[in-house]
Amino acid sequence: MSKNTQAPIPDSYPMTGGDGDYSYSRNSFYQRAGSEVAKSIVDNAIQENLDIKTISSSVSRNSFYIADFGCSVGPNTFTVVQNIIDAVQKKYQSDGLSSQVPEFEVFFNDHASNDFNTLFASLPPPRQYFAAGVPGSFHGRLFPESTLHIAYSSFSIQWLSKVPEELFDRNSMAWNKGRIYLTNAPNEVSEAYAAQFAKDMKNFLDARSKELVAGGLMVLTALSTPNEIYHFPVSPEFMFDLLGSSLMDMVKDGIISEEQVDEFNLPVFLASPEDMRRCIEKNGCFIIERMELLIPLSSINAQACAMNIRASVEGLISKHFGSEIIDELFGRFQKKLEESINLVEEIMTKRRNQLVTVLKRK
Amino acid sequence: MSKNTQAPIPDSYPMTGGDGDYSYSRNSFYQRAGSEVAKSIVDNAIQENLDIKTISSSVSRNSFYIADFGCSVGPNTFTVVQNIIDAVQKKYQSDGLSSQVPEFEVFFNDHASNDFNTLFASLPPPRQYFAAGVPGSFHGRLFPESTLHIAYSSFSIQWLSKVPEELFDRNSMAWNKGRIYLTNAPNEVSEAYAAQFAKDMKNFLDARSKELVAGGLMVLTALSTPNEIYHFPVSPEFMFDLLGSSLMDMVKDGIISEEQVDEFNLPVFLASPEDMRRCIEKNGCFIIERMELLIPLSSINAQACAMNIRASVEGLISKHFGSEIIDELFGRFQKKLEESINLVEEIMTKRRNQLVTVLKRK
Repeated sequence: MSKNTQAPIPDSYPMTGGDGDYSYSRNSFYQRAGSEVAKSIVDNAIQENLDIKTISSSVSRNSFYIADFGCSVGPNTFTVVQNIIDAVQKKYQSDGLSSQVPEFEVFFNDHASNDFNTLFASLPPPRQYFAAGVPGSFHGRLFPESTLHIAYSSFSIQWLSKVPEELFDRNSMAWNKGRIYLTNAPNEVSEAYAAQFAKDMKNFLDARSKELVAGGLMVLTALSTPNEIYHFPVSPEFMFDLLGSSLMDMVKDGIISEEQVDEFNLPVFLASPEDMRRCIEKNGCFIIERMELLIPLSSINAQACAMNIRASVEGLISKHFGSEIIDELFGRFQKKLEESINLVEEIMTKRRNQLVTVLKRK
Repeated sequence: MSKNTQAPIPDSYPMTGGDGDYSYSRNSFYQRAGSEVAKSIVDNAIQENLDIKTISSSVSRNSFYIADFGCSVGPNTFTVVQNIIDAVQKKYQSDGLSSQVPEFEVFFNDHASNDFNTLFASLPPPRQYFAAGVPGSFHGRLFPESTLHIAYSSFSIQWLSKVPEELFDRNSMAWNKGRIYLTNAPNEVSEAYAAQFAKDMKNFLDARSKELVAGGLMVLTALSTPNEIYHFPVSPEFMFDLLGSSLMDMVKDGIISEEQVDEFNLPVFLASPEDMRRCIEKNGCFIIERMELLIPLSSINAQACAMNIRASVEGLISKHFGSEIIDELFGRFQKKLEESINLVEEIMTKRRNQLVTVLKRK
């Protein structure tokens, strides 16, 4: 094999590692709730769409390979993985194949800069699977051909491999002055974001379509903007907008410069179901078994919401603005969330903006 | 699968992580030289003993799985792995199967407390394989049945899963008073060490015999005491003896207590070729394709030798005696190495005490 199986390394922005007060592992309640909400869909998909005979013929019959793409540092990934294994075991039983239940190997994937040491230290000690960590961008190949049976990704594909380049070009119509995201921005900004998402999803789906066995399942959970139904500000994007205006307030107070804000943009895109469908159909290797919009949370408070977003973007913001602004910024952000708590509650506990997509490899 | 596939967690004593002056990654010249010395044996073993047709039938024909057991933090493991892949590709070519060269996946295994973050950050960026880290003790199962094609372990199986319990029992004949190792100790101490090694190798070989495909190869490199030929002090054990006497000097100077030394023992055993052969034959699942004793180094100096041993045992010693004694201890140890440099040189550059064993799974 003379070809290089590794993709170029894109930007990476890991969730906050360790297990301190501001860590992702302690502040990922939203992602946990989101996985809980998706649980029954995953279970049903495995019962109804996993054809054990098809997938068993592709690789060793004794082993069943599961991968979580963008696992971060836990603990949500362990719960999700256990749910999947429980569902697969149930499927073997209901198919009358209890005696053939294979051994499970679970691959936890994230960027090489993810805190794998914390992840490995917190692996549940009595577990029904062999565990491995796979460092690298999921926008490129990470596994040999036709080796995965189930791929899963929870709240990760909304992260772009990079901010679209046009947003940094002062001469472009997509120069995103005074904003850190696409809300209230010219169309060119939204289009640049959408184009980057399409490129990233192309790479993601191309890689996964090589890695999954025929008949293998993939479940993707992501924050979405179902823009056919709801319009900004009743969208999770509202939170990014509040973060941006907190930064602009700090510009007004002379704490950071406006130029710094102009040059910072969040590498996130909340795809609509239509955006997602287009990417999948363009790839052509997957059948869409189901696509559902769910309500992510049953309750929320401003502090927890601020901490959750902080755990996700603190690294990114520190790198650009310096870590000394973090406490101030997230204090202001939390205050804005409190002021708009009714709208935040409406968005996160009453609107269907969590998109779950179940795909089967043809 | 209701069974728990994970072994109980034994003691772990990772090599010093990171890439600082005292890190394993900067002070593992001995292990690097050892792998270099073993390189041609590994290459020959793959050319002569790897039957591609046999192993291809066992699992997916498209993927070739290699595991390094006890990989530490690099960089030696990357060199070894590349050598193996080069040799396998050469074998496919010489067998006229160039068009069927599979994709390689390499599993880097070590204890969960190993610094995988450093390992992953230093993975060679253009590489011909997919990489995964596997946390856990190699004295238990780490992979599904019949999934590995080549297993490798370099200077790791000499580490015991724990110090034999008898050594901590003041009423036992194996109570190892005033020593940290088996040299110059009563027979009961040596026997306790040998019994622990046999138990650990049993667990290691039982696990690997499940994980390797039929026809799969395993190469084990370890420091050895070929005691049929040479006797202490012309053995690598001499170095452990000097470390022990450095600690006893610190007892005399009132820096540490004698009791602390009595209660500390190195969890290391340098098996003779006969020890190794007995373990393999008892397991019964492997053919011994070759077993060779090699000279590990062409030159050595006292400082590098002290730094190498420090990178391997600093964690262990700090945990027992406290990190404040480390600089003092290794200063004294280096001085002792300098005083005995002729003997150290004789042992490490003229004597065959590196044992390389090549096994094939029946």
